[in-house]
Amino acid sequence: MTTAPSIETVPSYIQDTWWTPSGDVTGVDARDASTGELLARVSTEGLDLGAAVEYGRTVGQAELGKLTIHERALKLRELAAYLNDRRTELYAVSARTGATKIDSMVDIDGGIGVLFTFSSKGRRELPNSNVIVDGPVEVLSKDGSFIGEHIYTRIPGVAAQINAFNFPVWGMLEKFAPAFIAGVPTIVKPATPSGYLAEAAVRAIVESGILPAGSLQLISGSARTLLDVLDYRDMVSFTGSASTANILKSHPNVAFGGVRFTAETDSLNAAILGPDAVHGTPEFDAFIKSVVTEMTVKAGQKCTSIRRTIVPNELKQAVIDAIGARLRERVVVGDPRAEGVTMGALASLEQLADVRSAVEAMIAAGGELAWGTLDAPEVTRADGSVAAVVDGAFMSPVLLSWADAEAPAVHSLEAFGPVSSVIGYETHDGDVSEAVRLAALGAGSLVATVCTNDPATAQALVTGIAAHHGRVLVLNREDARTSTGHGSPVPHLVHGGPGRAGGGEELGGIRSIKHHMQRTAIQGSPNMLTAVTGVWHTGAAQALAGDPGFGGVAATVHPFRKSLAELRIGDGFASGLREVTLADITAFANSTGDTFYAHTDAVAAEKNPFFPGIVAHGYLLVSWAAGLFVEAAPGPVLANYGLEALRFITPVPAGDSIRVTLTAKKITPRVTDEYGEVCWDAILHNQNGEIVATYDVLTLVEKENTIYA
Amino acid sequence: MTTAPSIETVPSYIQDTWWTPSGDVTGVDARDASTGELLARVSTEGLDLGAAVEYGRTVGQAELGKLTIHERALKLRELAAYLNDRRTELYAVSARTGATKIDSMVDIDGGIGVLFTFSSKGRRELPNSNVIVDGPVEVLSKDGSFIGEHIYTRIPGVAAQINAFNFPVWGMLEKFAPAFIAGVPTIVKPATPSGYLAEAAVRAIVESGILPAGSLQLISGSARTLLDVLDYRDMVSFTGSASTANILKSHPNVAFGGVRFTAETDSLNAAILGPDAVHGTPEFDAFIKSVVTEMTVKAGQKCTSIRRTIVPNELKQAVIDAIGARLRERVVVGDPRAEGVTMGALASLEQLADVRSAVEAMIAAGGELAWGTLDAPEVTRADGSVAAVVDGAFMSPVLLSWADAEAPAVHSLEAFGPVSSVIGYETHDGDVSEAVRLAALGAGSLVATVCTNDPATAQALVTGIAAHHGRVLVLNREDARTSTGHGSPVPHLVHGGPGRAGGGEELGGIRSIKHHMQRTAIQGSPNMLTAVTGVWHTGAAQALAGDPGFGGVAATVHPFRKSLAELRIGDGFASGLREVTLADITAFANSTGDTFYAHTDAVAAEKNPFFPGIVAHGYLLVSWAAGLFVEAAPGPVLANYGLEALRFITPVPAGDSIRVTLTAKKITPRVTDEYGEVCWDAILHNQNGEIVATYDVLTLVEKENTIYA
Repeated sequence: MTTAPSIETVPSYIQDTWWTPSGDVTGVDARDASTGELLARVSTEGLDLGAAVEYGRTVGQAELGKLTIHERALKLRELAAYLNDRRTELYAVSARTGATKIDSMVDIDGGIGVLFTFSSKGRRELPNSNVIVDGPVEVLSKDGSFIGEHIYTRIPGVAAQINAFNFPVWGMLEKFAPAFIAGVPTIVKPATPSGYLAEAAVRAIVESGILPAGSLQLISGSARTLLDVLDYRDMVSFTGSASTANILKSHPNVAFGGVRFTAETDSLNAAILGPDAVHGTPEFDAFIKSVVTEMTVKAGQKCTSIRRTIVPNELKQAVIDAIGARLRERVVVGDPRAEGVTMGALASLEQLADVRSAVEAMIAAGGELAWGTLDAPEVTRADGSVAAVVDGAFMSPVLLSWADAEAPAVHSLEAFGPVSSVIGYETHDGDVSEAVRLAALGAGSLVATVCTNDPATAQALVTGIAAHHGRVLVLNREDARTSTGHGSPVPHLVHGGPGRAGGGEELGGIRSIKHHMQRTAIQGSPNMLTAVTGVWHTGAAQALAGDPGFGGVAATVHPFRKSLAELRIGDGFASGLREVTLADITAFANSTGDTFYAHTDAVAAEKNPFFPGIVAHGYLLVSWAAGLFVEAAPGPVLANYGLEALRFITPVPAGDSIRVTLTAKKITPRVTDEYGEVCWDAILHNQNGEIVATYDVLTLVEKENTIYA
Repeated sequence: MTTAPSIETVPSYIQDTWWTPSGDVTGVDARDASTGELLARVSTEGLDLGAAVEYGRTVGQAELGKLTIHERALKLRELAAYLNDRRTELYAVSARTGATKIDSMVDIDGGIGVLFTFSSKGRRELPNSNVIVDGPVEVLSKDGSFIGEHIYTRIPGVAAQINAFNFPVWGMLEKFAPAFIAGVPTIVKPATPSGYLAEAAVRAIVESGILPAGSLQLISGSARTLLDVLDYRDMVSFTGSASTANILKSHPNVAFGGVRFTAETDSLNAAILGPDAVHGTPEFDAFIKSVVTEMTVKAGQKCTSIRRTIVPNELKQAVIDAIGARLRERVVVGDPRAEGVTMGALASLEQLADVRSAVEAMIAAGGELAWGTLDAPEVTRADGSVAAVVDGAFMSPVLLSWADAEAPAVHSLEAFGPVSSVIGYETHDGDVSEAVRLAALGAGSLVATVCTNDPATAQALVTGIAAHHGRVLVLNREDARTSTGHGSPVPHLVHGGPGRAGGGEELGGIRSIKHHMQRTAIQGSPNMLTAVTGVWHTGAAQALAGDPGFGGVAATVHPFRKSLAELRIGDGFASGLREVTLADITAFANSTGDTFYAHTDAVAAEKNPFFPGIVAHGYLLVSWAAGLFVEAAPGPVLANYGLEALRFITPVPAGDSIRVTLTAKKITPRVTDEYGEVCWDAILHNQNGEIVATYDVLTLVEKENTIYA
C-alpha cells in the first residue's frame, strides 16, 4: 500500500484551498488500467473533515444564498461552456482509466451535458428566487382567511457526494448540478481508482473562477469519518456497491441522526423480449444490438448494464446465436489509445479478479458459458501490436445461458464487467406474466428494457414491472435509432430504483433539485403567505386601478403602464361591468364560426344540464375580459404569451354582465434579458358578484420602460 | 403482566378473520386512564405475521387492483359516512383512554374527516386508472420519436402502519386512507394502551362490509417480528417515540433490505412571538391562547404540542403571566366523563411517571417552575366530586421558564404531557435571526408557529426556519379565529419533519398517495407511451376526421359526435385553413374592446421585439380555432369547462392562415355521473406548418349519447 515518495499524491480541495498530506504518508495506488503503470497515490491522512463540513455549512451556504435559483443556474451554464473548451485534456486523463474515446465522451461530454440541461431546466421550470411553491393553495377556512400550501427551501447543510469509479466526471457533475442550483454546498468524494480524473475536472472548475466560495470541496481519498461529522441538516448521495451502501446506512448519524441518505447501487437489470419480437423483426435486431452495447461499453462496468436477458423460450437459442455473432463481429479488446479498439480494460486488476470469480460462481450455480472465455483474451496494445497476455485488466465478453430461469444465482449474483445472462420464459397467446415475475426476481433494479412493437404487450410488461424499477425503456422499431439507450440515464428522468438498486432517486430534472430541499407546509392568512412566498394569494391586499365601484381606488396608474422596476405583487385593475346581449353572442358565433348549439339553439341549450339556455361562448368572455382590462397604448407590457388554468364556473346568458379583476401574482425578471414574465390572476364576475371564470394571464413585461418610453 | 383469564383479550383481524390467542397466554394490561379499572389485555402469542403479510401481498393486492383510484376513493367516502353514523359508540370507548369529548372528536371525527378529504382529492386530482403520470413529457430525440416521462404505480407489497397511543382512530385512518387509494393493503398495529379503541373502529369498518378482501388487517398487540417478514416491496409508516423508530430503522430489512420506512416522531416544537406582537395586540392574545390549548388538549400528549415558546426578552414575563392566568381560568382537570372537565388524564400511570421525571430532569438542568406543580392535582371525578388523590393518571399543567435560552435541556428533553417552556431572544430593529437560531436548536421539528402581523417578520422567520420543519403556521389577527391550530395536522398538508421529527412525511393530500407508489421513468416512442399510460402523446397515432389535406382521412365521424362509450384516445379532427385579414383583426379589436397596440397600431407593433407588425389577438386565434373544430349540432359533448397550458408560439399577421388539429388525449369517465371529462390536445398551425399555439381543451362528454339521442 505504501508508495514511493516520488509518486505524486492526488490533492484534495478543501475550504477553497488545495491540500495534500504533509510528510510521508500511507496511501493507496492508482494505476493505468491498460498498462499497470503507477500513476499516483491517494491519501487523506490528517485532513480535517469536520472543518470542511463546517466551511460548507457556513461560507458555502452564505455565498450560495446570495444568489437566486436562476443566477446559480446561469453559473452552471457558464461552467459547462468553460469545461467544454477543456474536454481534450480530460480525454487524455480518462484513457488511463481504461475508457475508450466513446466511454470518455459518455463520461465527460455527458457530465457537461447534465450541467447544460440543469441550467436550462432551473431557469425554465423554477422561480427566480429561493422559495419554490409546490402544488396548489388549499383553502382551510370557509371565509378564505386561513389557507395553506407547500414550499421548498434548501436544506441547511452540505451535500456529501460519494461516487463510483466508473464515471468519475459524469458521476460528480450529475450530483453537483442539482445541489448547486438548490443552493447547497457540495463535498465530493470520488472513488480511488479513477479519482485522479475527478481531481483534474475539479482543477478545471476551480481555475474557471466561476463558482462562489464554498460551493465545491473535493476529498481525494478515504472519507471514512465523514459521516461522523454530518447531521440532519446534511445529505449523503451515494453511488457504488450495495455492501458499502449498507455500511453507510448503518452509521448512527444516518440510522438515528437524521442524515438524509440516498443510494444508487448496481442491480441485475433485465431486458425483456416480447413474444412478437421474433427473429427477423426490427425489434429482435434492436434487442441484440442493445444487449451487446450494454455488455461492452465501459467494459460492462455500468450499474445500468443488462445482466439478465429474459426472452421467450422459443427464441432463446436465436438470441444467444445473434449476440455471439455480433460480439465476434464488433468487439476488439485492447488499450483504448490504440486504433480500432472497441472495448477497453476493466478499471483495475482487482476489479478483473472480482468479475472472474463472480462468473465462476455463476457457472457453479447453473450458468453455462454460451459465448466467451475466462482465459486472458488477445489484446491490442497502444502501439497496435497484439499480445495474449499483458499487465492490463483485460477480459473477454462473457454470455451465460441458464436452463433454469429461476436459478437464484442469475437473479442475485452480479459480475460487474462484460457479462450477461440469458434466461427463457413461457408465453401463450401473448401472456407475459411469466416474464414480469422473472424480472421482479431481481428484487429491485435501476432499469429494464421492454422490447416489443405490440401496444398491449408494452402495457402489460411496463405496468407489471414498473414498481420494481426506477426506469423502463420500451424499445421498438420507432425509437431503435433515436433511443438514448438502455444504459444511459438522462438528466431529465430519474435515475435510481427500489430494493437492490439502493432505494434512491437522482436526476429527473427539477425533481433532483428538490431532493436537496425540505418540503414544508405553510399555513396562514393570504397576506402572510404572500409575504413568505413572494406570490400574490387570493384574498391578500391589492392596489387596484380602475372602476371605484369594484375596488379600483387604491391605485391611479394602470398596472400595464408599470415596468418590472415599478410593478409590485398585488398591483391590479378592476373593470366596470359590460352587458352581454343575444346579438353579441350571435355575432361572435358568426364571426368565429363557433356555432355550437349552446350559443345558437335555444331549445337544445335548455336541454343541456349545465346551461340555463343560450349562453355566451367562454372564448367571448375571455376576449371581452381582455378588452376590459387592457391598457391599449404602447408601454412596458410587450406580449400576452399564454394562459393557464382557465375554468368556466358560472354560465353567462344574454342579459348578464361581466367584469374582470386583474392582479399581478408572480413577477419573474430574467437575469439575461431586458424583460421578464408577469403572471396575472384574472377573475371574472357577473353582475351578482358570482364567479364566472378564473385563470392566469401570462405576459412579458420590460424591466425598465425603454422601447416605448 | 399476566392477567386473569376472565379479562377479554383484544382480538386481531388477520386474513379477513377475527383472531385471538388460544389457551392461557401472557398479555399486557390495558386500563381506564382515569379510574385505573382493568379493561382488557393484549397479546399476539401464536399469530403468524408472515401469513398476514403474504395475504396482503396476494389477496389484498389482487382485490384492490380490480378497482381504479376513483373507485377506491368512492369506497372511502362510503366508509366515512358509515363510520359517521357509529361515532357515539366510539366516543364511549374513547373516554376510557382519558380523552375529553373534544379530544375524542379530534381523534374520531378528525379521522373520518381524513377519509372524506382523501376521497374527494383522489377523485378530483388523480386519474380514474391505476397509472398516475407525473410531470411533463420530455422530448429526448430531435424528431420526437423517442420521449420520456414519469409514472407512479403502487408498490407491490403491504403498508405496515405502526401507530402511537394518543390518536388511535385518527392515527389509523390517516395512514390507511392514502394506502387504500393507492391500492396497497394495510396491516395496522395500534399502540397497546389504547389499542382497544382502534379495535372498536376496525370492528365497525369490517361490519360495514365496504372494503375488498385483504384491504385491512389489524394486529392487536406486539408485532416485534413484523419487520422480519417485510422486504423492498413493502413500506412501514411509524408514529411514536424516536427510540422505537431507531430500533425499527436499524432492522436489517430496513437498513439493508430496502423496506421503505417513514417515521413521525415527537419533536420539541416551537412557537415564536414576533417583536411586533407586544402585549395588547391581537397577536399576543392569539399566541397565549394557542400555547394554553396546545398544553392542555389531550393533556399535552401530542407530538405536535408547543414545547418551546420563544419570545422577545422584553415580553417574556408578560407571556408567562398571561399563560398562567389563562391556565388558572380555563383548566379543570378530571375524568373526561364529568361535566366541566377541560383536561383529562394522561394515557396511563406509566406515562404520568415518565412525564414527571422528564420535568424533574428539566428543572435540574436549569428550568424554573413558572406555573403549576408536580404534586397530584385536585381532580374532578366522573360523579362530579373533587378529590386530591385518585387512581388515574392526572397531572397539573406545568410551565417552565429558562434564564439560559441555549440550555441544551430545553432543546432536547421532552415531557410528553401538559408541559411547555418559555425562553427569550434578543431582537433589535425587528431582527429575528436570534429566534431563528434558537428554533433550529430543536434539531428538526414537526411544526412551529410564527406569531406576527408584520410581513417582513413573517418572511424572515418562516424562510429562516422552514428547512428545519415539516409545517409552519403564521398566526396573526387575520387567521386567529379561523386557523385550524398549531397542533392539528390537516389532511391537505404534509405532516412530519426532518431530524428529531423522524425525517418522514405523511398526509399532504395526494402526496401521501404517491408515498405508497413507486415513481418510474419510462422511455419509448409516442405510441408505446400512449399504450402504457392511456394518455395520448404528441406523435402517436391519430384517427382524424376533417380536411384530408391536413390528415383528416382516417375517421369519418367527428369526435364530438362520439360518447365516451365510442370515443378512443387518438380520435380527432383536422380543420382546413382560414385566412386572417386586417379587417378581421380590427373587427375583433372593436367588438371585444381589446385595442392593444399590437393589434391596432402598425408603427408601435413593428417596434415590438416579438411581432412583425400588427398581429391577430391570441384570443381571436383560439376563438376561431373553436369555430374550426366545433361540431355545432347537439350531441354528447355537453360543455367546454376550461382550458390548460395555452402558449402562443408564432405570431399571426394579417394574410396568414390558421388551422387546428384536435385530438382526444385523456378520457376520464366519472364513476358517479352520466358523463366524464375529455381533455383534447389542440394545436394551431399556420399555412407554412409552423406551430401557432398549443393548448388543452377541457370538455364534459356523456358516457352514452342520451340527452340529444
